[in-house]
Amino acid sequence: MRAGHRDPQLDANGELNHLLTMEGLPAEIVFHILDTAKPFVSVTEREVKKLPLLRGKSIFNLFFEPSTRTRTTFEIAAKRLSADVVNLNVGASSQSKGETLLDTVANLSAMHADMFVVRHAQSGAAHLIAGHVAPDIHVINAGDGRHAHPTQALLDLFTIRHYKGDFSRLRVAIVGDVLHSRVARSQIHALTTVGVPEVRVIAPQTLLPRYVERLGVHVYHDMASGLRDVDVVIMLRLQNERMDGALLPSAQEFYKYYGLTEEKLMVARPDAIVMHPGPMNRGVEIDSGVADGRQSVILPQVTFGIAVRMAVMSILAGH
Amino acid sequence: MRAGHRDPQLDANGELNHLLTMEGLPAEIVFHILDTAKPFVSVTEREVKKLPLLRGKSIFNLFFEPSTRTRTTFEIAAKRLSADVVNLNVGASSQSKGETLLDTVANLSAMHADMFVVRHAQSGAAHLIAGHVAPDIHVINAGDGRHAHPTQALLDLFTIRHYKGDFSRLRVAIVGDVLHSRVARSQIHALTTVGVPEVRVIAPQTLLPRYVERLGVHVYHDMASGLRDVDVVIMLRLQNERMDGALLPSAQEFYKYYGLTEEKLMVARPDAIVMHPGPMNRGVEIDSGVADGRQSVILPQVTFGIAVRMAVMSILAGH
Amino acid sequence: MRAGHRDPQLDANGELNHLLTMEGLPAEIVFHILDTAKPFVSVTEREVKKLPLLRGKSIFNLFFEPSTRTRTTFEIAAKRLSADVVNLNVGASSQSKGETLLDTVANLSAMHADMFVVRHAQSGAAHLIAGHVAPDIHVINAGDGRHAHPTQALLDLFTIRHYKGDFSRLRVAIVGDVLHSRVARSQIHALTTVGVPEVRVIAPQTLLPRYVERLGVHVYHDMASGLRDVDVVIMLRLQNERMDGALLPSAQEFYKYYGLTEEKLMVARPDAIVMHPGPMNRGVEIDSGVADGRQSVILPQVTFGIAVRMAVMSILAGH
Repeated sequence: MRAGHRDPQLDANGELNHLLTMEGLPAEIVFHILDTAKPFVSVTEREVKKLPLLRGKSIFNLFFEPSTRTRTTFEIAAKRLSADVVNLNVGASSQSKGETLLDTVANLSAMHADMFVVRHAQSGAAHLIAGHVAPDIHVINAGDGRHAHPTQALLDLFTIRHYKGDFSRLRVAIVGDVLHSRVARSQIHALTTVGVPEVRVIAPQTLLPRYVERLGVHVYHDMASGLRDVDVVIMLRLQNERMDGALLPSAQEFYKYYGLTEEKLMVARPDAIVMHPGPMNRGVEIDSGVADGRQSVILPQVTFGIAVRMAVMSILAGH
Repeated sequence: MRAGHRDPQLDANGELNHLLTMEGLPAEIVFHILDTAKPFVSVTEREVKKLPLLRGKSIFNLFFEPSTRTRTTFEIAAKRLSADVVNLNVGASSQSKGETLLDTVANLSAMHADMFVVRHAQSGAAHLIAGHVAPDIHVINAGDGRHAHPTQALLDLFTIRHYKGDFSRLRVAIVGDVLHSRVARSQIHALTTVGVPEVRVIAPQTLLPRYVERLGVHVYHDMASGLRDVDVVIMLRLQNERMDGALLPSAQEFYKYYGLTEEKLMVARPDAIVMHPGPMNRGVEIDSGVADGRQSVILPQVTFGIAVRMAVMSILAGH
Repeated sequence: MRAGHRDPQLDANGELNHLLTMEGLPAEIVFHILDTAKPFVSVTEREVKKLPLLRGKSIFNLFFEPSTRTRTTFEIAAKRLSADVVNLNVGASSQSKGETLLDTVANLSAMHADMFVVRHAQSGAAHLIAGHVAPDIHVINAGDGRHAHPTQALLDLFTIRHYKGDFSRLRVAIVGDVLHSRVARSQIHALTTVGVPEVRVIAPQTLLPRYVERLGVHVYHDMASGLRDVDVVIMLRLQNERMDGALLPSAQEFYKYYGLTEEKLMVARPDAIVMHPGPMNRGVEIDSGVADGRQSVILPQVTFGIAVRMAVMSILAGH
C-alpha cells in the first residue's frame, strides 16, 4: 500500500474506520467482525435485547434511495445497542431543494453525528461521504448503486461459517444477475478474502460483467454443471426492471434455465445450503419449495444480519 | 370449542396470545385488559410517563395501509413502556418489490421481533400473519379491511365503564355507516361480550350489513326512536368515499337524518355520553356543538386509548 | 402590556410557555435561552451525548409542511434530552381525511403530549395551536408561512455572540429575499431585541416587504454600500420558486448583484463572519469560496442550533 493511497476504510493504525466495500478489506478485519457478531446473536434471543454499548451515540440512517427492509435492519441493530437513531429519507427533502450531497452531509455532521448508514443509487456515494466527514464520524455503506453492499456480504459469510464451520474447503456458487448486483460484487470479494477456494458464478452471458473471471471466479452458463458438488448456493434477486429489458427474454424463460428448483439442486452436495439476500421473487429465481425447504438458510441470514450490523457498529464505535 | 379449532387469539392455557378481533374473545380476558389499563391512565398523567415493562422488546408497527393517527397511538403506548419501536410503511417498499406479505413478515420475525402491530386494507390480514409467526411473537390487529379494530372497541368499553360504572343496565346506540365499519363490528362484539343488555344500530338500510340482527343488535332507521333513552351514543365516521357513491344521496342529506345534533340528542337520557372514534367530519355525522359539548367524551376516548394499548401490549408481553 | 393582551408566549408569571415568535419576546428571556444553551454545546461534544432532563416526556414533531432538515434538528435535540419523540407528517394523513387542524391537535393533546414542535405553511398556525392546547402543553414554532422561525433566529444570536462576544456595538446585514423569509423577520426582531445598534437589509425593492424600515432596519439596495464595515453578514436562501417568478430576472442576475462573493465581502470588516440558515444555493446567493471560507460560520450555526433547541425544550419543560 503506497503512501497517499491508504485504504479509506482504515485509520492510521489499520483499524476499521468506515465500512465501504469488501474489496481490499483485510481478512483479519473480516474475521474480527464475524467473531464480534457471534455473541450478538444470543443477545437478540434474550428477554431484554439491549446492550448499552452505543448509549448517547447518534446514528443517522441516510437513505437517498428508499429501502424499508435494509433501513429496518440497521435501525433495529442500532436500537439494540441503545443508540439514538434518526431516519432520513433524503430524496424527499433537502436534495429536492437543490442542496448538494456534501452540504447535506456536512450539515448532519455538524449536529455531531457519530455514524452515517448510507444508501444511495450512485456507486461511490458512501466513499465520497466518508472522504468528507469529520474524523470521528464513521460511515457504513448500506448499498451504493451497482458497487457494494458490504454488510450483506458479511452476513453471508457469517451464515456460511455458522453452517459449514470453516471456509477453506468450500465450493460456493452465486447464481443469477451478477451484472447489476452490488450484493454479488461484495460477496465475491468477501468469499475470496476469507479463503474460499472455489467461487463460481452461474448466469447467462448477458447478466455477467465483462472480465468477471478477473475477480477470481469460475464462470458457468448452466446450472447442471455450475451447481455440481457445491456446498453453498447463493441465489441473487432478479430485479423486475431487468425482466422487461433486452437482457432477458422473460421471467418464465429465466426460471426455466436459472431458477433454483429441487431438481436442479440435486447435483449440489446433499448438505448444500441455499441462500438469498431477499426480497425473493418466488417462481422467478427460486422455487417456493426450495425457498422454504430443508436446505434453505434464508431466514437465519436475516437473524445473523442484525448481529453482524451490531458488530460493525460496535467496532466502529471503538468497542 | 372443538380440538383443532382453538381460538387463534389464545394460547394453550387460554391466555391472550394475539389480539385480532373482539369476536369470541372471552369476557374474562376483556375485563382483564380493562382492569390492567386502569393504572396506566395515571402513568400517562405523571411527570415521567414511562415504565420499564417492555424494555428491550422490539415492536414493529407494520402499516400496509397508512394511518398516522393509529400508528401514533401504538407508538406512544410502546415508548411509554420503554419498548424499541420501528415504523414500517410497507406499501411503499418491499410489497412493491413483489415480495409476498408472508415473506415480509417472516423476514421481520427473523429479526427477533416481539410484537407486530398490523394495519391492512384486507380483512383477515392480521389473522393470516398471526398464523405464520414464530410462537413467541404476538400480533395486534390495528384494523383490517372491514373486519375488526379491537383496540378501538376496547377503549370504547373502557370509556363507557369509566363514565357509567358498569355495563349491565345500559342501552348503547351505534349510529351511521355500520356496513363499512370495522369499528362498528368490533364494538358490537365487545358490547355483547361484556353484557350490555341492549345494543342498537341506527342507519339507513343501505349502510347496514345484511342480517345485522344476528349479531344481537336492535335495528333502527331513525334517530328519534333509536336514540330514545340510550345511555351511550357512538357515532361512526362517514368515510368521504361513501358520500360520492350510490349508497348515500349526499352529506347534507345524511346530516339531516343521521347527523347527531343537540336536538336529536335530547331524546337520549340526560346523562348520555357521546363517543366517536375519530377523525370526525363535523357537520356530516356530528354537529360541532355536540362534538365539543358537555356530553362528549371523544377526547377522553383518546386518552384511554393509550392506556388500553399499553395494557394489551403488557399483557401480551407476559406482564 | 394591557390586561387581556398578555403575550401568548408567556405564562402568568412572565415565564416562557410557548416559543412562537421573536417579536415581543422579552430580552431577558432571549438571554436566558442563550445562556442555557451554552453548556449544551459541550454535551453534544461528549462521548455520551445524553441528559435525562426530558425523560418520560412525549414530544411530537408535527410537520404539516415537510422539512427533513428542521425536523432532524428538533428530533436529535429531544433525543439527547432523553425525550420520547414521535414524528408526524400530518399532510399525508388526518388532514386529508378532512379533520380540522384543531381536532388533530386536540387528539394529540389527549395522548398527553408534553410539547408540539409545529411546522406549517400557514402563518399563524403555531399561535392558533398554542391558543387551544391544554395548559401543560408547550408549543414551539418551527416555521409558519412567511411569519416566524424563532429557533433559527435564536441560533443566529447564539452564533453571533459566540464569535463577537457582545451585541452592543455590531453592524449586521441581512441579504436577499427578505420579503418571503420568515427567517429574516425573526432575525430582525431578535437582533433589535438584544440591542444590536445597526441592522441592515440589502435586497432589490421587489424582495423587500413594504414599510420594512418600521422594523428598525436600514435599507440598502446594493452590496457595496450595504456591506461596508459590517461585522456580520447573514445571507438568506433564495427559494427556487422565486427565481422563476416575476420578482427576479434570473438566478444569474441575482448572483451578479446580490450573491456574496469574496470580492463583495471585502468592504465588510476584515473579521466579519458570514452566516446562512441553509440549505444553500451555491452560486446563487453565495459563492462556494465564501461558503467554505475562513469567515464562514455556517456549520457552527448548525451545531449551535442543536444546543439552542435543547435549551428551549428544557426551559419549556421547567428546567
